[in-house]
Amino acid sequence: MSDMMAFGRKILSEQPFSVALGAELTVFEESKAELTLALREDHLQQNGFAHGGVVSYLADNALTFAGGSVLGPVLTLEMKINYVRPATGDRLVARAEVLSAGRTQAVCQCKVFAVSKDSEKLCAVAQGTVMIASR
Amino acid sequence: MSDMMAFGRKILSEQPFSVALGAELTVFEESKAELTLALREDHLQQNGFAHGGVVSYLADNALTFAGGSVLGPVLTLEMKINYVRPATGDRLVARAEVLSAGRTQAVCQCKVFAVSKDSEKLCAVAQGTVMIASR
Amino acid sequence: MSDMMAFGRKILSEQPFSVALGAELTVFEESKAELTLALREDHLQQNGFAHGGVVSYLADNALTFAGGSVLGPVLTLEMKINYVRPATGDRLVARAEVLSAGRTQAVCQCKVFAVSKDSEKLCAVAQGTVMIASR
Amino acid sequence: MSDMMAFGRKILSEQPFSVALGAELTVFEESKAELTLALREDHLQQNGFAHGGVVSYLADNALTFAGGSVLGPVLTLEMKINYVRPATGDRLVARAEVLSAGRTQAVCQCKVFAVSKDSEKLCAVAQGTVMIASR
Repeated sequence: MSDMMAFGRKILSEQPFSVALGAELTVFEESKAELTLALREDHLQQNGFAHGGVVSYLADNALTFAGGSVLGPVLTLEMKINYVRPATGDRLVARAEVLSAGRTQAVCQCKVFAVSKDSEKLCAVAQGTVMIASR
Repeated sequence: MSDMMAFGRKILSEQPFSVALGAELTVFEESKAELTLALREDHLQQNGFAHGGVVSYLADNALTFAGGSVLGPVLTLEMKINYVRPATGDRLVARAEVLSAGRTQAVCQCKVFAVSKDSEKLCAVAQGTVMIASR
Repeated sequence: MSDMMAFGRKILSEQPFSVALGAELTVFEESKAELTLALREDHLQQNGFAHGGVVSYLADNALTFAGGSVLGPVLTLEMKINYVRPATGDRLVARAEVLSAGRTQAVCQCKVFAVSKDSEKLCAVAQGTVMIASR
Repeated sequence: MSDMMAFGRKILSEQPFSVALGAELTVFEESKAELTLALREDHLQQNGFAHGGVVSYLADNALTFAGGSVLGPVLTLEMKINYVRPATGDRLVARAEVLSAGRTQAVCQCKVFAVSKDSEKLCAVAQGTVMIASR
């Protein structure tokens, strides 16, 4: 495991909400981050799909890690998410990348995929801004 | 309790994710919904504030309930959220209202407040679209 | 006319795009701004409604003026707009207000109305962030 | 010129606002659209950059053409745009693509570039939803 990945996992392990949900950091490189969440009963909505709040949590956190990979400790200022397909399957995978980074802010994009044994389907797309934490 | 509130609470109680987080439906009227979340350790981020994912869950769900109050069962198509202040305090209260409703879609707004014994501060603002579920 | 309004109109008159479109600043107070646009043929789309780009220009600029009313010279960092009804009528009126302002950024909301002799209908809702220009 | 491009250019030529601004459709294929705007004095803001409203017009219209390339006549329901760099140069080029399309709606992304003789810089990123027009 790279030092960067070890550092990212340490940060994630210090987020009680991420630990409670069971999110894992599966990619963490310059300008990129991927979070994976094995779906559990308590992530669902009344219709059996993952709750939109679970999907938006993943997107938000992946955007923050992607932005943080180039800016250091950051906060998410804002995010927009489009839910394009029910989030169902074995796990959700959120892949975020930096689209543009300045000195204090970065604009990132994230795609969330619903993954099963033999398929991977886009279920949400997000775009947002992160800012260095010492604002 | 009104029939409508009883119905709304039943729906919320059927969302495993909402139950796991501990969200309560505290207002549910035509065009309006309010969700309240007593903050717990497992809602937090590494900095002690509520995780952005908790705030966006609340906003997303409150938007959906508000839209659902006029359209019946709905899905959230998309949402945009601005985090304007750290979400800290005893509880978070998300107040959503319908800004415009058509036959199949509604555009709603939500403000999330961080509430303590003697203060109530705006911590996030969201805007989004819900659509009737039978799309 | 207040000094503030005179100042705002001077700024608007220095924006060649705003002058070309014919936008007028009709309210400019602390935390608030209103832009009015008398609709012309060259603002339209192929269907006879005002082009979405005209509506988003108005929302964007009204957000910027509202934010600027409390922060001084600002840039719009990002904006989200929902078009809720065709923009048609005699004129469009964009009313923006500050929802939350920090030291360097403000989050603002804007509602755009389509106005005719005897009606005023909400046609778009926007939310966005402005930042002081010296970033 | 392909039939599709000829059709797209005809649509654009029927939008008085697009004609007034001088936008050209430079790519129009299944799932993709590109609009190009040679910058003129009347597109600018007081600071000499293209007005945010010009950039958002381009993004909005490119999203609509991209979505329309797979769905037929569409309206833009909503859009979110992040301005990441001043829009300056000889021309702006907005490149949009469909990220996900259903039967009646599509979610599209657009990047707007500021282009000069020897550079092309990302100046805005947008994400939005289009819907078939017969709603």
